[in-house]
Amino acid sequence: MDLVIGLDADDTLWHNERYFAHTHAQFAELLSPYVSDETCLTERLDETERSNLRIYGYGIKAFTLSMVETAIEVTDHRVPVSVLSTLLDWGKEMLTLPVELLDGVSETVTSLAESYRLMLITKGDLIHQESKVAASPLADLLWRVEVVAEKDETTYARLLRHNLIDTDRFVMVGNSVRSDVLPVLGIGARAVHIPYEITWSHEQVEGACGFPVLASIRDLPEWLDTQN
Amino acid sequence: MDLVIGLDADDTLWHNERYFAHTHAQFAELLSPYVSDETCLTERLDETERSNLRIYGYGIKAFTLSMVETAIEVTDHRVPVSVLSTLLDWGKEMLTLPVELLDGVSETVTSLAESYRLMLITKGDLIHQESKVAASPLADLLWRVEVVAEKDETTYARLLRHNLIDTDRFVMVGNSVRSDVLPVLGIGARAVHIPYEITWSHEQVEGACGFPVLASIRDLPEWLDTQN
Repeated sequence: MDLVIGLDADDTLWHNERYFAHTHAQFAELLSPYVSDETCLTERLDETERSNLRIYGYGIKAFTLSMVETAIEVTDHRVPVSVLSTLLDWGKEMLTLPVELLDGVSETVTSLAESYRLMLITKGDLIHQESKVAASPLADLLWRVEVVAEKDETTYARLLRHNLIDTDRFVMVGNSVRSDVLPVLGIGARAVHIPYEITWSHEQVEGACGFPVLASIRDLPEWLDTQN
Repeated sequence: MDLVIGLDADDTLWHNERYFAHTHAQFAELLSPYVSDETCLTERLDETERSNLRIYGYGIKAFTLSMVETAIEVTDHRVPVSVLSTLLDWGKEMLTLPVELLDGVSETVTSLAESYRLMLITKGDLIHQESKVAASPLADLLWRVEVVAEKDETTYARLLRHNLIDTDRFVMVGNSVRSDVLPVLGIGARAVHIPYEITWSHEQVEGACGFPVLASIRDLPEWLDTQN
């Protein structure tokens, strides 16, 4: 069986969104003394992130810049500089957090690597994602590591073409319906959804269905056995 | 002739370092009212950039974060928040500057694409470098676009292996001896140095020699004709 398995990284192999969610909450707590009670800080931060996405892209550096920008704007420039300095520190802390694999990942990926070529496909900061791969115990099990700016049909088609993979030999696995499932189905390949405990609002898709959903990566080898 | 030509992007195909140099000068001017006369602002910014390189990597988001950090530090937290806001704006401006090709690039790359497979290999922000390629008139002439976290021997060896290119069929062309020439020679491939008007201090190498140096990319086709 010569299937190539595409694996999303953040929140599929290792925890990620929980750190963003935690920092969002910390952000709201840190800034609350400087804004009126009606200001919804996490919503404002989310808005800044979204509006910066086109030029900043994904990842923690983009997030840190958006935190600083939001802090300045919501306080109408009255935020103390020490608070902004704290936000920079949080960004650096997030960039140097140890990699925490999800439950079942280590055994399952080790076992998958014996039967399939594994291709990690992730968005985010290039250097940070490569550091996480290198710091994880999975680096030697991966046939390819591809950090991409956006996970859309064009990107998946290019990755398969450049790596000489036939569409009907590719299965993508990930926690985001928007990024890991729909565009892959769109180019005629297969995709499996493994939901994570939290989904970033940007990645949410309502009412999408018609693809396999697994409760844990532990169930993936058995599902793959049913494919050809 | 089935040579693959690797092309560096920043300061080889389009201007880049001049924008950083200009912003360095602007930074020194903007911050000078808040520091003592002895503070060498551009040097302090350069130090911050270097010390952040390991976790931030290359590119304008990293540079913007380093500007904000330096401004806070050199003023001992006394910098006005409006100044920090200006630094964020400069970062966004840099990220949306139009792509300005170097003299001779358009004609030469068009002509090279008729005889060779062209592989753009660049460091920096993934999304920003891909936007620059897309905004340039060169996008359709490039066989591959590879944005990498570091240009060292390991990276070049991986790129050649994944793209099925023999070492003796690869020639790298770029303005940085450190990133475009030495590691490529190190893995046994060929490299050509085309110096740019300014070299970022991080990329400077003293006394390196023993490789071809061209004054302009216009001279590249003729040099390639002498290779096999």
